[in-house]
Amino acid sequence: MLATKSHCFIDALLRRPVQRTPVWMMRQAGRYLPEYRALRAKAGSFMNLCTNPELACEVTLQPLRRFSFDAAILFSDILTIPDAMGLGLHFVENEGPKFERPLNTAAEVNSLPVPDPEIELRYVMDAVRLIRRNLNGEVPLIGFSGSPWTLATYMIEGGSSRSFEKIKRWMYSDPRSMHALLEKLADAVALYLNAQIAAGAEAVMIFDTWGGNLSTEDYLMFSLAYARSVRERLSLDPEEGNQIPTIFFTKGGGQWLETMADSGYSALGLDWTTDLGLARSRVGNRVALQGNMDPMVLFAEPAVIREKVRTVLERYGKGSGHVFNLGHGIVPGIDPENVQAMVEAVHEFSPANHR
Amino acid sequence: MLATKSHCFIDALLRRPVQRTPVWMMRQAGRYLPEYRALRAKAGSFMNLCTNPELACEVTLQPLRRFSFDAAILFSDILTIPDAMGLGLHFVENEGPKFERPLNTAAEVNSLPVPDPEIELRYVMDAVRLIRRNLNGEVPLIGFSGSPWTLATYMIEGGSSRSFEKIKRWMYSDPRSMHALLEKLADAVALYLNAQIAAGAEAVMIFDTWGGNLSTEDYLMFSLAYARSVRERLSLDPEEGNQIPTIFFTKGGGQWLETMADSGYSALGLDWTTDLGLARSRVGNRVALQGNMDPMVLFAEPAVIREKVRTVLERYGKGSGHVFNLGHGIVPGIDPENVQAMVEAVHEFSPANHR
Repeated sequence: MLATKSHCFIDALLRRPVQRTPVWMMRQAGRYLPEYRALRAKAGSFMNLCTNPELACEVTLQPLRRFSFDAAILFSDILTIPDAMGLGLHFVENEGPKFERPLNTAAEVNSLPVPDPEIELRYVMDAVRLIRRNLNGEVPLIGFSGSPWTLATYMIEGGSSRSFEKIKRWMYSDPRSMHALLEKLADAVALYLNAQIAAGAEAVMIFDTWGGNLSTEDYLMFSLAYARSVRERLSLDPEEGNQIPTIFFTKGGGQWLETMADSGYSALGLDWTTDLGLARSRVGNRVALQGNMDPMVLFAEPAVIREKVRTVLERYGKGSGHVFNLGHGIVPGIDPENVQAMVEAVHEFSPANHR
Repeated sequence: MLATKSHCFIDALLRRPVQRTPVWMMRQAGRYLPEYRALRAKAGSFMNLCTNPELACEVTLQPLRRFSFDAAILFSDILTIPDAMGLGLHFVENEGPKFERPLNTAAEVNSLPVPDPEIELRYVMDAVRLIRRNLNGEVPLIGFSGSPWTLATYMIEGGSSRSFEKIKRWMYSDPRSMHALLEKLADAVALYLNAQIAAGAEAVMIFDTWGGNLSTEDYLMFSLAYARSVRERLSLDPEEGNQIPTIFFTKGGGQWLETMADSGYSALGLDWTTDLGLARSRVGNRVALQGNMDPMVLFAEPAVIREKVRTVLERYGKGSGHVFNLGHGIVPGIDPENVQAMVEAVHEFSPANHR
């Protein structure tokens, strides 16, 4: 029973037959859960949760006690690498992540260190080891990182941005040092993910949160090229010796799926704006697809949620290669009962896709 | 000479032969211009500029004195209709538009009035008449409105939003009253644009700033359907008796161009994320295309700007049916000299597309 459960997520990513569509949720360990909010309040800050392996492990496991999710995802932040590079990550209430020392010059890029994951990011690796041990094989553990481009946006803008004025000004004025930064970040991300794999991550996902803000030409050169470079350097599963499943997610990347499907990842994450059926016909048999219900659907009544889950499953259609997820992270304020309705609907409706 | 100049914008929208690609810029009358900032400071507020026809006319004409743009666009705001419906529009520095009385209930939707453009929005019509007279046939005047969906987002969220939590919660929980609101807004937008046409607007553009945040299914039902309904009710040119050229722009709508091309508009606006060459092959001969250089390119050196202009023109390729523009509005802080470099590059490189 446990073995079957633990495999359907991996099998779907590798487009092997499954009995039902696996389901997990971006930000499944998060503020919509009262037990998360309680632990977060006790810890004092979000970063205290991330940097304490016991707390990170506990938070990772919380949603799995409530819901039949088919994967756990490491509780951490996409910006741990720039923090370890010395930029000083902190979180401002309702404003998201900020860096104390954002990048301003090409000289600063040159002197940026590439962190050794087992030293400067040891707390992440300890969390991965602890979570993996505690999961006890029940469901696979997903490790993750921000994409080089997305890390660069925060490092240069100093936080979230709407216009990406600083990084684009830099990119258009001095593309050479932008490429130098992205190469360094690709090195750091590859090392970081390989350390997570060595520590026990059984699949990895790259979050390219801001690639969708680029022109097609710039996306290919400044975002996808470096995501591909990371992929090429990922190590094999230390136990099985094969490639571990990999997921690449560019929010707003729906226009570029054909090219993304050739970048070596096992699966592409889709946000909710992309039609899953069209996406499948565009990528063919090259990759699995993960997604993509609008997270805001979870504010509706369970009956509406069930219908929307059914629509997503029908849009994908028959056969393996689909991991059910939201199109972006779940947001605070959603009733956990509604998540339960979503998971039950996937369980109820998806077997029809696999007969 | 004037006649030729005034026609190339209209001709390109109707896919008739032109000698060079026409160019204008979203937000061409705006904060990047020192003369705009001076008048804005004197007026005291953005809304004072909009509601005073003489000031709106002056601001509309300012960029045309500097640059060889091929169209003027009415200086106004996309949110004049909800303001005229009684929601109380005001602008908070660095936070964008806000409504004092956002919509909360279906009952409020039912009691919303549909404004008579020549009464409650008379200041807009007076501005259109005054601008048209002052333009003296030199370049055509574009009128515009927000799309029903985009107006609804601001009316319900009360301002700008990242997650659109309130409107989506409403849309998923009570789609019937959401449709009632959008129908009423489509009525109001059609009346408003027809009044602008009667007052002298020679082309109209619909800005669907937030349609790109919807799932494909929801975009078709809640945004595009109402944009189409507006289009169907637009009146003919009062002088010539033919259809006036119409442009529909959904920011983030690059995935849906094929369907948008069937909605009756003469042209589609493209943001900078869409490849113009691919877009052209997808829409075929059904519509013209407007766009789509990343506005952030204008922060780069003139030499870089020239190369990026050339790339956009090359991506479109030979033949008429292209109006050069940015992929979104120009932002404050850009040197007007850089806009000049862009316009000159369009003039220099585009004739090769029309030989």
